[in-house]
Amino acid sequence: MSLIVTGTIGIDTIHTPTGSAESVLGGSCTYFAAAASFFTPVRIVAAVGGDFTTEHEKVFAAFPTVCCQGLDRRPQSKTFAWGGRYLDDMNQRETLYTHLGVLEEAPPIPPEVYRDSRFVFLANTHPGVQRGLLEHFPARTLAVADTMNLWIDIASDELKALLTSVDGLVLNDEEARMLTGSRNNIDAGRRILDMGPRFAIIKKGEHGSILVHRDGVAAIPAYPTDVVIDPTGAGDSFAGGLMGRLASTTAADPLSLEEIQKAMAVGSVVASFTIESFSLERLTTLQRAEIDGRAQEFARMVRV
Amino acid sequence: MSLIVTGTIGIDTIHTPTGSAESVLGGSCTYFAAAASFFTPVRIVAAVGGDFTTEHEKVFAAFPTVCCQGLDRRPQSKTFAWGGRYLDDMNQRETLYTHLGVLEEAPPIPPEVYRDSRFVFLANTHPGVQRGLLEHFPARTLAVADTMNLWIDIASDELKALLTSVDGLVLNDEEARMLTGSRNNIDAGRRILDMGPRFAIIKKGEHGSILVHRDGVAAIPAYPTDVVIDPTGAGDSFAGGLMGRLASTTAADPLSLEEIQKAMAVGSVVASFTIESFSLERLTTLQRAEIDGRAQEFARMVRV
Repeated sequence: MSLIVTGTIGIDTIHTPTGSAESVLGGSCTYFAAAASFFTPVRIVAAVGGDFTTEHEKVFAAFPTVCCQGLDRRPQSKTFAWGGRYLDDMNQRETLYTHLGVLEEAPPIPPEVYRDSRFVFLANTHPGVQRGLLEHFPARTLAVADTMNLWIDIASDELKALLTSVDGLVLNDEEARMLTGSRNNIDAGRRILDMGPRFAIIKKGEHGSILVHRDGVAAIPAYPTDVVIDPTGAGDSFAGGLMGRLASTTAADPLSLEEIQKAMAVGSVVASFTIESFSLERLTTLQRAEIDGRAQEFARMVRV
Repeated sequence: MSLIVTGTIGIDTIHTPTGSAESVLGGSCTYFAAAASFFTPVRIVAAVGGDFTTEHEKVFAAFPTVCCQGLDRRPQSKTFAWGGRYLDDMNQRETLYTHLGVLEEAPPIPPEVYRDSRFVFLANTHPGVQRGLLEHFPARTLAVADTMNLWIDIASDELKALLTSVDGLVLNDEEARMLTGSRNNIDAGRRILDMGPRFAIIKKGEHGSILVHRDGVAAIPAYPTDVVIDPTGAGDSFAGGLMGRLASTTAADPLSLEEIQKAMAVGSVVASFTIESFSLERLTTLQRAEIDGRAQEFARMVRV
């Protein structure tokens, strides 16, 4: 099934307690597309500037099912750039700089040939822009959005309008608290469902994620690992694995509680590979069989 | 199988964002014994003072399989007392006071009739005392200890000596970091195994727990719930459910990775009942069928 992601391509500079990576490929769209591509073809809609090098572009070539027709190249502009430093506690990071670049300009327009996209993931950006993007995909059967604290803070009304038009929302626990006023993830999830979506996935980083669905609640730990080189992109890889799996399932209802649970497990497994290296390094050599193998191991690890 | 717990009986005064409870029964031994009693008879070894009332004692009567022969009454002394306040984020609490009382005196001596105990849980106290208690149970087939940051700080050598004599260690993630120097739970768990135990369970409060076992790693979320009145005793109830299940299993090897995983799920479920009220209130009316029902629901919630 055709899966599309609208989001950010970034040039990241990352420092961790054990190393650094300078000007490497990053961004929500990038990690999402790479992760999803193991399960289904993925279309991307994102803008880059003149500083997006052939080195950066070559990374996408490692994922042959990613279609880059929706890549909007703007030679006179700058690609979104982010610099960050992870603390000894890798759950915490500080932003060193954010250069919005193309994100300050008009959003990219999805190519006409993408109109038949059935599965849509709106990675984090202004909820008004996310809502506008939805209109380009009239054939969609599933739309899921990500968001962040900034929009909850300054564009709450637009976010609530968006929530009436999507099937699912993915966000982290702090954002869920901001959006709903509730400190309990289950309660926060239920309040999000009251705003429109059929399900909400609340991400807790290394502590896994919670699914609140109209038909029930589920919880999944993160894949337990001690190989954590760079956590950047873990959340977007989780979403990519999740949506890739949902888009490729043959189940009668891909939005059922059970299917989303299975998809969350797939997302957790793909994310566990992402964090094994800086940028997309690990994902570029990853094989589907490795994902399936670890998914089996994960099922054993979390059985009760 | 005979299960014994050595630990603390306390008189707690607790404030949460939604209410308070004054001078109620608490303590590691209490929560542990109540939780375990749903699965197997439990013997307790703990000391109380003259301020331990018949009201407090009556709570134990609600758990008929708890044997109180090892209750050491010291009319001239004071029961251990703790006052605490939970913040809006119920994962955080501040201690208002700690009155050690009987804990400053000689530890209680287990009755001779308890010598045949097979399953031993050493709730948190000085590791030298824990080690001394072990000698009273020469027939033990499984010994598990809990500990806390204080002992890691001031009695590290005694704790390491204890670890050579127990099969398992239960502690929280912050304590695991203190003990091992590792911020990664899997790595910390492996370092604990290097110190002697066959398994380590690292508790993460509302985020569940991690098992590091000689035969592999497992992860389990907390039971997802929005009914959280008072988190006090959740960790001890988890340990009680865990040990109660291990002591009652008919599996050839109750210490196998798989058996401990199942027992952790049982512990999570019992803990989810504990936090539904102050003190032991919910546990006193709890039925085994309710535990089994929620355990089934939990299995559905965490399947991948």
